[in-house]
Amino acid sequence: MKNKQTTLKLIAEKLNISITTASKALKGYSDVSEKTKNAVIMLAKELNYTPNSFAVNLRTRESKTIGLIIPEVVHHFFSNVINGIIDEAENNGYLVIILQSNESLELEKKQVELLINKRVDGIIMSLSNQSNFDSHIKNIIEKGIPLVLFDKISKLVNCSKVIIDDQKAAFEAVEHLISKGCKKIAHIRGPNNPQNAIDRFLGYKKALEKNNIAYDSKLVYTCTDVTFEEGKKFAKEIIEEHSEVDGLFVITDLVAVGVLAYFNEKQIKVPQQIKIIGFSNWFMSQVITPKLSTVDQPSFEMGKQSFKLLFEEMVHFKNNTPFEPKTILLKTSIIERESTQNK
Amino acid sequence: MKNKQTTLKLIAEKLNISITTASKALKGYSDVSEKTKNAVIMLAKELNYTPNSFAVNLRTRESKTIGLIIPEVVHHFFSNVINGIIDEAENNGYLVIILQSNESLELEKKQVELLINKRVDGIIMSLSNQSNFDSHIKNIIEKGIPLVLFDKISKLVNCSKVIIDDQKAAFEAVEHLISKGCKKIAHIRGPNNPQNAIDRFLGYKKALEKNNIAYDSKLVYTCTDVTFEEGKKFAKEIIEEHSEVDGLFVITDLVAVGVLAYFNEKQIKVPQQIKIIGFSNWFMSQVITPKLSTVDQPSFEMGKQSFKLLFEEMVHFKNNTPFEPKTILLKTSIIERESTQNK
Repeated sequence: MKNKQTTLKLIAEKLNISITTASKALKGYSDVSEKTKNAVIMLAKELNYTPNSFAVNLRTRESKTIGLIIPEVVHHFFSNVINGIIDEAENNGYLVIILQSNESLELEKKQVELLINKRVDGIIMSLSNQSNFDSHIKNIIEKGIPLVLFDKISKLVNCSKVIIDDQKAAFEAVEHLISKGCKKIAHIRGPNNPQNAIDRFLGYKKALEKNNIAYDSKLVYTCTDVTFEEGKKFAKEIIEEHSEVDGLFVITDLVAVGVLAYFNEKQIKVPQQIKIIGFSNWFMSQVITPKLSTVDQPSFEMGKQSFKLLFEEMVHFKNNTPFEPKTILLKTSIIERESTQNK
Repeated sequence: MKNKQTTLKLIAEKLNISITTASKALKGYSDVSEKTKNAVIMLAKELNYTPNSFAVNLRTRESKTIGLIIPEVVHHFFSNVINGIIDEAENNGYLVIILQSNESLELEKKQVELLINKRVDGIIMSLSNQSNFDSHIKNIIEKGIPLVLFDKISKLVNCSKVIIDDQKAAFEAVEHLISKGCKKIAHIRGPNNPQNAIDRFLGYKKALEKNNIAYDSKLVYTCTDVTFEEGKKFAKEIIEEHSEVDGLFVITDLVAVGVLAYFNEKQIKVPQQIKIIGFSNWFMSQVITPKLSTVDQPSFEMGKQSFKLLFEEMVHFKNNTPFEPKTILLKTSIIERESTQNK
């Protein structure tokens, strides 16, 4: 591995291009110009580093194991995704090493290194809240290790992705509240960095705009940890600061359930006084009182598709044929339950 | 591996002992007589198969990876155990391959084989409902691969275990109902095979006996799949067949939440008409209405202890020093919430 890296670096330096470009050129990616490709291949041959020997090297080190890094295991959404990934991986004879970043960028970096040293055939990740196109992700790409991001992605990373249209889904959720008569709609959003939290917030804003409801930044509450407890805390703040709020769109069901718990405790009537819609369709949303309306996110399917995409890329990688990163967009739908009904 | 197996088998046959005993003798287990130990070691040397070469063989094949097989990933209890195992494994520089048996003995067997072929350093398992001391488990023991069972164990397997005292915990749960005035207590139990379902049932029976309440087998309902839906189904049967039931002890919170969902639907008042206690303390138990009383099971700790025990055994295995399987018994406690309160 070391040697390969050194040569790739040398090629990049000599041609004054990035290691990523050099690596892509060798793999035949179409977003590298023919001219650059030829230059890279010529120089690689000169240095006795040809795409073919590269491929042979890879073929022999196939481990039939992939790595999965997710923020949390004890989480309805992620455990369903894990389920989908394991299921699909096993069908294809792959084993899955699971690591949990606990939303720590530090830990996530260490884990990527571990997986690379372990020589996994590919990596699937949902990024931790602070993660972006940092050195560890660059390292995966530069080493040419097949990578798929799902759910919490970074737009900056050029790799395959499995996502939902968070903005559209959030837009529909807020329009659902509006269709039920809500006029003053608050939003409990996710942290500032993750793309899905940004997109859901943008969807919220867009739905207000489209329906001529003035956007008020004071009605937006930002989670740090995205927990049940934060739901309770913001529910209290909303009622105390903005008792006129009649609709609430919450970043995820776990937080929405915290909101409901607080409202139940204080006998604030849902859906009569305030209507609530969550996101993700956690199992508990259908068993609490009142039952929670939410956005259904196909988590098991997201896991299956993530592995399928990774598998496709691993096959190309093994055969040294070009592969274009793809993005799969899965459909979401609104599930109406008691918390948004007109009573 | 093949060769080692063949020699071990040969030793066992020549001495007319089991492969397990031969393997244990080589590892110095104390439950093998000195006489047998000596005979095995002598013959092993004769066949050029000494405990020392055995140890060397192992040292070189250390993979710093362990395998974990559990029935279900999307499961509050198991995902917490996974969390504990990953946490402890990472602290010690180990990676965890997670496989899901989906309660299928067939799949579980295939997965054990996969992990053995993958040369993991050790295996942690919670058995699927039909699993027992079958050939695949025997294979792990015979190959001398460190093994820890947790939660769903088989008493027949001589390996390290991390469990709770299910019988005692169930006994306490049923006595809790009795202390609240329940006189006609039904039990929704788990399937017939798993040890923990048997033990919880025995605890239920014992508590009735001790409190001079006649045991009635008609009040015992047996789950096949241990699901929310089964909870709803049995709740219906209990009310229709035995409306005099005033207390209910349920194998696990997920099923108990199904019971509550049915009772809420039919406006059967909990705890006034019937008191309910679950088992395992799933997160949703504290957010449903009424909040569910339950038995707290230290799932995260169970994961941590499982890895610690495995690690201990792996160290002994590597150094070829004798290791006695241990059983760690973790404490449980009753959590009283609304579903068993006197109102």
